[in-house]
Formats: sequence, C-alpha cells, structure tokens
Amino acid sequence: MALANVNVCGPKTARVCAKSMKMDVGAKVGRPGAMSRVVRVRASAEKIDFNYEGAFTLPYAPVREALLPDGPWTVIDGGVCAAKGFKVAGYKAGLRKKGTRADCALIVADEDATCAGIFTTNLMCAAPVAFCKKQLAGKPTARALLINAGQANAATGDAGFADSQATADALSKALGVAGDDILLMSTGVIGQRIKMDKLLPAIDVLAANVEASTAAANAAATAICTTDLVRKTIAIEVDIGGKKVRMGGMAKGSGMIHPNMATMLGVVTCDAAVSPEVWRGITSRAGTNSFNQISVDGDTSTNDSLVCFASGKAGNAVITDANSADAKLLEQALTAVCRGLAKAIAWDGEGATCLIECNVSGAMDDEDARVIARSVVCSSLAKAAIFGHDPNWGRLACAAGYASPVKHNFNQNDLKLSLGPHQLMDKGQPLAFDAVAASQYLKDVTGVHGTCVVDISVGSGPGKGQAWGCDLSYDYVKINAEYTT
Amino acid sequence: MALANVNVCGPKTARVCAKSMKMDVGAKVGRPGAMSRVVRVRASAEKIDFNYEGAFTLPYAPVREALLPDGPWTVIDGGVCAAKGFKVAGYKAGLRKKGTRADCALIVADEDATCAGIFTTNLMCAAPVAFCKKQLAGKPTARALLINAGQANAATGDAGFADSQATADALSKALGVAGDDILLMSTGVIGQRIKMDKLLPAIDVLAANVEASTAAANAAATAICTTDLVRKTIAIEVDIGGKKVRMGGMAKGSGMIHPNMATMLGVVTCDAAVSPEVWRGITSRAGTNSFNQISVDGDTSTNDSLVCFASGKAGNAVITDANSADAKLLEQALTAVCRGLAKAIAWDGEGATCLIECNVSGAMDDEDARVIARSVVCSSLAKAAIFGHDPNWGRLACAAGYASPVKHNFNQNDLKLSLGPHQLMDKGQPLAFDAVAASQYLKDVTGVHGTCVVDISVGSGPGKGQAWGCDLSYDYVKINAEYTT
Repeated sequence: MALANVNVCGPKTARVCAKSMKMDVGAKVGRPGAMSRVVRVRASAEKIDFNYEGAFTLPYAPVREALLPDGPWTVIDGGVCAAKGFKVAGYKAGLRKKGTRADCALIVADEDATCAGIFTTNLMCAAPVAFCKKQLAGKPTARALLINAGQANAATGDAGFADSQATADALSKALGVAGDDILLMSTGVIGQRIKMDKLLPAIDVLAANVEASTAAANAAATAICTTDLVRKTIAIEVDIGGKKVRMGGMAKGSGMIHPNMATMLGVVTCDAAVSPEVWRGITSRAGTNSFNQISVDGDTSTNDSLVCFASGKAGNAVITDANSADAKLLEQALTAVCRGLAKAIAWDGEGATCLIECNVSGAMDDEDARVIARSVVCSSLAKAAIFGHDPNWGRLACAAGYASPVKHNFNQNDLKLSLGPHQLMDKGQPLAFDAVAASQYLKDVTGVHGTCVVDISVGSGPGKGQAWGCDLSYDYVKINAEYTT
Repeated sequence: MALANVNVCGPKTARVCAKSMKMDVGAKVGRPGAMSRVVRVRASAEKIDFNYEGAFTLPYAPVREALLPDGPWTVIDGGVCAAKGFKVAGYKAGLRKKGTRADCALIVADEDATCAGIFTTNLMCAAPVAFCKKQLAGKPTARALLINAGQANAATGDAGFADSQATADALSKALGVAGDDILLMSTGVIGQRIKMDKLLPAIDVLAANVEASTAAANAAATAICTTDLVRKTIAIEVDIGGKKVRMGGMAKGSGMIHPNMATMLGVVTCDAAVSPEVWRGITSRAGTNSFNQISVDGDTSTNDSLVCFASGKAGNAVITDANSADAKLLEQALTAVCRGLAKAIAWDGEGATCLIECNVSGAMDDEDARVIARSVVCSSLAKAAIFGHDPNWGRLACAAGYASPVKHNFNQNDLKLSLGPHQLMDKGQPLAFDAVAASQYLKDVTGVHGTCVVDISVGSGPGKGQAWGCDLSYDYVKINAEYTT
C-alpha cells in the first residue's frame, strides 16, 4: 500500500515536514472512521494542512528556463494561482492503481469566469469531454474544474456519463454553485470507471481546501499527471490596456499525444477582462498553434481537453474587439503559455531523451506548414534515428513528403533541410555534410535532454509552422508494454 | 569485406555447395580484371552458376502455411517464376553497406506483358517511382523490371533521375528491348545515390542469367530485402476459363510501412490473358485491399511500388469484361496473393513478435471499415500493449475512435470489441472479462509469432474491412536507431 505524505488535522495546525508523515489520506477517507471525518470537513470547512513539499510534487519541466517562447512578458510564480480570482487544491483520493502521488485537482474561480475550451476530436471521447462540451455550449462561464487521474472514464458507456454527472452534482453541492458552473476532466486508463467511492469523499476535502498559492498550484499540476515524469506549469505577467494581466497554466501528458488535440489535459487561468466571443477565438487559435502541434506517439487520446478561464479581475477595460491591439497581445501571451506547456509535454514524452522542434517555412499557407511540421515530428523512423544519434535525414525528407493533406503542389526539388546547424539538403539535392559532426549534434542535444531542431523549407510561399515531438527510445516501449499489467 | 557464396564460372558448370564458396562476385566485378570478364558475359551471354542454396536465400515467411487467404486455388512452387513467360535472376552487385546478401533482382517477360502498377503517394517520391509512373502512363506493357536494394535513390534530385535513366538504358541494351519496356524499383537508404559503378556491370550479369526456376525466384525475393528477416514469396494456380492460370508474387518490406502504399516493393507475375484496362482495375483494387491495409510504423515510404505483369501465356480467352466471372476470379486470386505477401510484410515488421489482424464490420461502407481497421493496427500504444501481453483494450477502442476520415456518424455506444476469443466490449459498454486469460492469449500468439486477432463492430452498416500490423517491441527501436550509423 502506497502512502502519501499528507497530514490530516484541524484548521491552522502547523505543517509537518514530509519525512515525518506516514498517513495515507486516501485510504483513511475510504474507511468508515475517516468517512465521518470527511463529513465533518464538509460541514465545518475543516482545513487539511497538506505538505506540498512532499509527495504532492514532481520535478518540474524546464518551461520557464527553455520552453516558453520569448515575448513582452515576465515569468512569475504561482502557476494556475498566479491570476487573480482563482483558488486550487491537489489531493490524493486513492484513485491510482499504485503510486504515492495525489490524483485529484480542483480549480475554483471566485466568481463567474469567462471560459472557453477545445477538446479531442476522437469519436470515442470520454464522458467528461462530452460533459464539458455540453456545459460550454450552454454557458460561456464556469466556476470550477475538477480533474482526476487514475481512470480516464473513457469507453465506459452510459455508466461513465452517469459517474460524471454524479461527480459534478457532488462538487456543485460542496461548493454551493450551480450545476452548470462545473467542468470535469479525467485521465488514466481507458475503459475503467472512476473509483467513485474514493472520488466523492475527496470532493469535499478539495472544496474545503482550495487556496491561492504557488504550493497549491504545484500540487494540482502534480495531481493530474500520469506517466509524466515532470509537472508542467508556468505563469506570466503582461501589460495589457495599462494593467498587469496575469496568466498561469498547467498541463499533463506524456503518452497518447497527437493532434487533434495533442495534450491530454491543459488548464489556463487568466485575470484579463475579455468577452466570451473574443476569448473563445483566442483559445481556439492558441490551441491550434500549441497543443495541436505536438505528438509523442501518434495516438489521439479519448480525453484531450484544454480549458481557459478569464476572471476579469485584472481591472483592464473589457476586450471586445478581436482585432484590437489588446486582443492580439492577449492571444500572443496565451499562445506562449500554451506553447510552453505543449512543448513541455513533448519534452517529457514517454521515454524521450530530447524535444524535437520542426520549423517549416515556404509553404503555401500556415496550415500547410503546420501539417508538414507535424508529419516530421510524428515519424517513428525519424524519432528512432534521432534517439540513435543517426543523422539519417532521408527519413525527415520522407516524412515531409507524406504529410497529408497538403493543399499546395509540394515540389521535392524545392526542399531545403537542416538538422541543427548542419544543412543537409538544398533545392531537393543532398549536400555533402560532416556525418560525424551531425551525429555529435544529436549526442549533444540528447545528452542534456535538450532540443533537436529540424528546419525545412518547402518552397517560396509565405506559410510558416512549427511542431514538437520527441525521440523514440526503448523506454517508450517499456513504459507502454507494462502500463496496466 | 563480406563474402557472397556465389560461384563465377562458365556455362553449365556444376553447382558448388554453399560452404565451399568464398568468392565475392560483386567485388570481382568491381575490379578491372573482373570487368573484362563481365564484358565477356555480355558479349557471349556467359552463364554464372549461382548457388541459390547459399547466401542468396533467407528463411521464408509462412505465406503458404498461414498467411495466404483460402480460396479456389492451389499453392504451387515457383514464386515469380511460376507463371509462364517470365525469367528472373538475383545477384550480388555489392550495393549494400554491409552484409552478404544479393542486392539486385531482374524479372524479364519473354514477350510484351500487360502491366499495371500502383505507387507511393509520398510527394517525396524516389526517382524509380517517377520513372515507372511515366513509363506506365505511356504504355500498358513492359518487358523487364530491375530492382536494387542498398540505396533507395530517393531525395537524390535530378542526379537520381539521371541514374534511373542510365540504368534503364543499360538494361535495354543488355536485353535488346526498347527503352520504354523497362521498369525500375529501388529500396534502401533514402538520400543516397545508387552505386552506379557496381550496378551497371551487374546489369549484364543479370541479363545473361535469367532463368525460370524456383531457385532463381527465391534468389530474386532475397535480393530485394533490406531489414527483412524473411523473404516473402508465394505462387498459386487457379482454373480460369477452363485453363490453368498461374500467379506468383514476391515482396519486400519490414519498416517504413504504411498506407498508401504500404509495402515497400511488390511484384506479381501472372500468365492470364487479360486486357490492360481490366488488369489495371484488378491491380488497383487488389492493392487497396492488401498492401494499402498494412502498417508497421506509420511511415509511408518514398519508394513503395507494386507492379503486376500478365503474360497471356496461360491460353485462356482474353478477359476483357471487368464484370465477367473470369475477371472476378482473377481479381480474387490476385487479391489473395497480394494479401498473403502484404500480411507477410506486417508479420515480418521490424522487431515484431506477432502479426496483428484487425477485422472491422458494421461500418457504413468498406472504405470506412478499412480506415478504422488501419487506425487500430497503426496505434503505437495498442502495439506496445500487445507486445507486453497487456489486454489494454481501451487503446484499441481509442484508436478506432480517432480513425479519420470516417464518413458515417461513428457512435461509440455501438462499439463491440474482441481480442481473440475474448469479448471485451459490447454496445459501447466494457464487459467483465478474464484479464489473465486475455493476457495468456497474447502470450500464446507472440510466443509462436502467430496472429493476434482484433474484431471490432462499429454499427449495423454493411461495410467490412481488414488491416494488418504488428506489435511494437524494443527491437523496432534498436533496428531503427542503428540503421545507417
């Protein structure tokens, strides 16, 4: 039985250091004696003093150091709590088959927050995806988002949808908000129903313990992870309309990563004031240029979801014109946050030793460029070659060639291709290159879990696009051959 | 320096057993002394007595034992030499970077043979693909097909196309046939030009040594292999129009296998008399239902080609009506041969421990069913789970759900799913199942390199389709991480 380093106690008791704690809150909650305790938590809003330095944390992805695009913003602390108007909690309900990590996260907006989402295109979509799509179709605001790891609640039929509804009902009651204010995400094994006997009591604990702190944001980012080796979280501050606007995000994902959507789960909180229509457009385009441009293994998940909240607490004049400078800057910032998180997912791809970034230019339009870039980072053969430090660039050219659908007349005699600083092809002709040096480039980037850059130009068109993936190693197979048994 | 077990000698000398031979014909041809010898070969049609029991053979895929679909035909010996009117040769020119295997194959029709082909959809297509498409657009017959392994002659620019032309010119001269009677295929490393100094002298040897024998057919099937661990060849006999029609095929492929096209290379010879129009339609549909339904790694090659010859030597009345019973039977037989070979490619997928067959029913039409079946056999996660004996069927349902494009309204509540004899899902609801027994099923099929069967029904439509793939093992990564360096 795995133990979580979590302390269960009355409000305002002192935090206890990780090493001294041996109690498994999830297990306790599941026992009759603990159940009554949870009821007390709900009744009295009893606080649980989580030790967020302990089992609620994972090492972090280098989003702020390496993966966040540059722009007119400053990196700040706080993750999804950086924006004003949001409180979060992470908790271990005991949903995972094994492991000591928290498995539930709750994000609560103090008041109605403008909300937009994009979701997996998999027709076999999970119950929480169907639930969220229905909620957001009916109402452009939300108050709370509950995320669980452990079970994906996908391919669970009508019973799975009933579980989602029961979860939302319980959360609505615990928070005292309307049922249509609730959003849900799940991640974990497909085809397994959520352990409702563990989740329902946890909802009360989460609801009673949300807070606006970096520690809570990190705990939430940890709780939603599955095979992730690092948590993905970032926050930035940007001047918009003369006010400081804050934006924080978290994401999870490591395998079953492919457009569209390409994350498993992503959440961004923001305190800008923005109309639902403008926010919806910004969210959609930011997702297109980030989470929809990453792949780990070509598998589009059943549960992929990105939800972006805007609380309006920053005090800026409400952005209602999609073409205004404020809207453009807000989109630029949201795209950066999403890209930082999306790249972190690819960087943390199952078994990966490097991030692969493919930059395509010269395409007929941006969408063509994105399609070609995705094709390259998805190629199993290119990925295996990079893992093996093999500058087998023919596989990169090949993958560019089978990108589909590409609207323009791809002419192989226009192809230009570089691997890091090494140009390997020009005008469709192979160039002589130093194979030892090119191999060393791959050794260097994989040695530090860095970024392998592939630049491809396919013609003279204005279209540009980027995509991110990772190399394919023995560990990918190992992780996925042994996932449920 | 690797040595080939090949004997160079005058015509009609005795064959020498494999173990006694240490001469490297490829290397000899490359030396000045040997060159004059080759010239003599061309001038006098000197025969080289290949020892086809030695380095010209690979173990064979179980096409006749397990992979050929049942039908009103009989399996016969002879491979691509089984049909009347064709002669072949395999030879080691020395094109491979390493290894002792032959690397060139030549198929020659005694007279003009009706010919149809289908080719990769990769826009980055190899020079021989462009060459063949041009040839077959101009003329519905051909006399000879030369195949080389070692270099793919893809992404080689104008120089690569010139190499193809020079190869065809040399073959045309050696055989004394017109330039537009020649077809070409290449396979090997992308981005490398063919070693023409090795290939050109070999053409004379091949031309002088074609013969109609099972040994020669096996040598040719071996010569075209790259990372293949087994040769893929089959021949059948079928009664059409009161005559015995023979059909033989060979294929190569193990990695970079994905629709469309999904083989790397395939050749079928047949002695039916059939009009070019009917043969073209039959070839196209047979390819759609075989080579275009397999995947090893999701990578569509630059060189994929299937060429089907019909010599007309069987003596049947020429089939000119595509809707006649004879045409239907011919198509059924060609589809069977192509399926047997295509399944052999998936069976021999790089690092594979089993073939995966996905049967989809209940789709709106056959194309939808094929798309869904392909999606399932392409899923890296499903493939890794099967390798790990993990009945993680959620990954199979997930992959069915993201199949694209599917025209009909896929409803996840209609999904039915079985893994071998174990039904795991019905009407979109997970069923209780014996996970240990289901895992044992996977252990059993992978233990004997057998077939893992996945049956999926997506509704009540009439559409049916099949696709074939293989599991994803550590060895796939190993093979592809170390391919060129």
